[in-house]
Amino acid sequence: MSSITSPIIDQIYKHGSVRDYSAEPVSKETVEAIVAAAQRSASSSNLQVYSVVAVVDAERRSQISEIAGNQAHIIQAPVFLTWCADLSRLERVCQRRGYTQRAELMEPFLIAAVDVAIAMQTATLAAESLGLGTCYIGAIRNDPARLIELLNLPRLVFPISGMTLGWPAAQPKLRPRLPLDAVLHWEAYDCSQEERLLEEYDRAMVETGIYDGRQVPVPGVEGEMEDYGWQEHSARRVSRLLRPHLRDVLTEQGLELR
Amino acid sequence: MSSITSPIIDQIYKHGSVRDYSAEPVSKETVEAIVAAAQRSASSSNLQVYSVVAVVDAERRSQISEIAGNQAHIIQAPVFLTWCADLSRLERVCQRRGYTQRAELMEPFLIAAVDVAIAMQTATLAAESLGLGTCYIGAIRNDPARLIELLNLPRLVFPISGMTLGWPAAQPKLRPRLPLDAVLHWEAYDCSQEERLLEEYDRAMVETGIYDGRQVPVPGVEGEMEDYGWQEHSARRVSRLLRPHLRDVLTEQGLELR
Repeated sequence: MSSITSPIIDQIYKHGSVRDYSAEPVSKETVEAIVAAAQRSASSSNLQVYSVVAVVDAERRSQISEIAGNQAHIIQAPVFLTWCADLSRLERVCQRRGYTQRAELMEPFLIAAVDVAIAMQTATLAAESLGLGTCYIGAIRNDPARLIELLNLPRLVFPISGMTLGWPAAQPKLRPRLPLDAVLHWEAYDCSQEERLLEEYDRAMVETGIYDGRQVPVPGVEGEMEDYGWQEHSARRVSRLLRPHLRDVLTEQGLELR
Repeated sequence: MSSITSPIIDQIYKHGSVRDYSAEPVSKETVEAIVAAAQRSASSSNLQVYSVVAVVDAERRSQISEIAGNQAHIIQAPVFLTWCADLSRLERVCQRRGYTQRAELMEPFLIAAVDVAIAMQTATLAAESLGLGTCYIGAIRNDPARLIELLNLPRLVFPISGMTLGWPAAQPKLRPRLPLDAVLHWEAYDCSQEERLLEEYDRAMVETGIYDGRQVPVPGVEGEMEDYGWQEHSARRVSRLLRPHLRDVLTEQGLELR
């Protein structure tokens, strides 16, 4: 960690996704304080094209858990937030004022997705500053159509990410991140040192024990084995067909991304 | 502001986009500390599918300013950060390890866009905690193809947002946000009170003086005028054809969003 720091940067360094929560509830006022803080974030042209649906009801959270691959911490955490790109609010405004929104384009959807991601990250840091923990749940996109029905999301609203919210029962283990130079480029994109940096990261990730000492064949070298690391793990993941239904559900919600 | 607060929430409430910077430079170490802090944010499956290009060179910043509609603060701020969705790093990993990435799908692009937005918002709060200011520059998407060439961004890298970074010469004026109840829904989406809440917001925004006391005809009521407010302003904005080239440039970068 750099010597250039602040109490906020100190807190940022303590972030880990919390998957183990105590039974203690989170008050409505606390959720409101967190979302109100999130609203103070930057928003493209101040359009604020996002909405949050807070679910406390246990039966509803259990259904969300089913949608998201039966993750136990969705049932355990007292609050579940669904952060949505929301072009429907301005659609209603346009209808009342005699305008036609161009919601079929890629750009307004991208504005909304970025707006909501900015807001939800501010919410995460606000929540953590109160001693709460969160975990982003991208797996709500396993079956966004079912979640859209469950939360009664109108046309032009799309759930970007879920988030569990509660009091941590255990502090999460923090993982190393990619070496800074693999992510930060100066003046122009430069990946000339990348291979070496990613090998360095593989070693750091293997050392955490997260991959249980697994070994895999060295690509292109008959009979030789090496540690299963972040590169192998991530390559396997992104070579899988990831949520191929997403585009169709977006189109059904009126978001054609033209 | 809620009574449920913290020093970090206090800082979040002071956020405003800075468009007026002093001439004082920002050290390389400071940029590194900010991006390293951003890296601590959550990342979907720890894939970390984003990159940041930091531009200090004045000639290069002047070209970026041209791309982004000649915004003076891009030239004035000593550092310009371009936050990119980056599926190219894992493409190179896949090639080395014998996998085929499914980068043509919507889901990996959405993961990358959300990952980078989360990271850049953490960077903003880290920068602000050091006394720096930022301003998101979505207008880099006016001509993303030119920026891609300027920053030498490879296939599968797409610039999501720019960001000016520097020492504020003046504190920005803060604007009210939508009433909380227009954004936060409980258990399910509910816009039954929305019209009233948006009228309330119109009045709050008119009071800031941002719309210079302009008046517009009341929709559907012959001869009657009313204050030009946030609803009229935003409806006009989203009814314009917003960056219709975006999809084509994404496709050219190998991001088909299928």
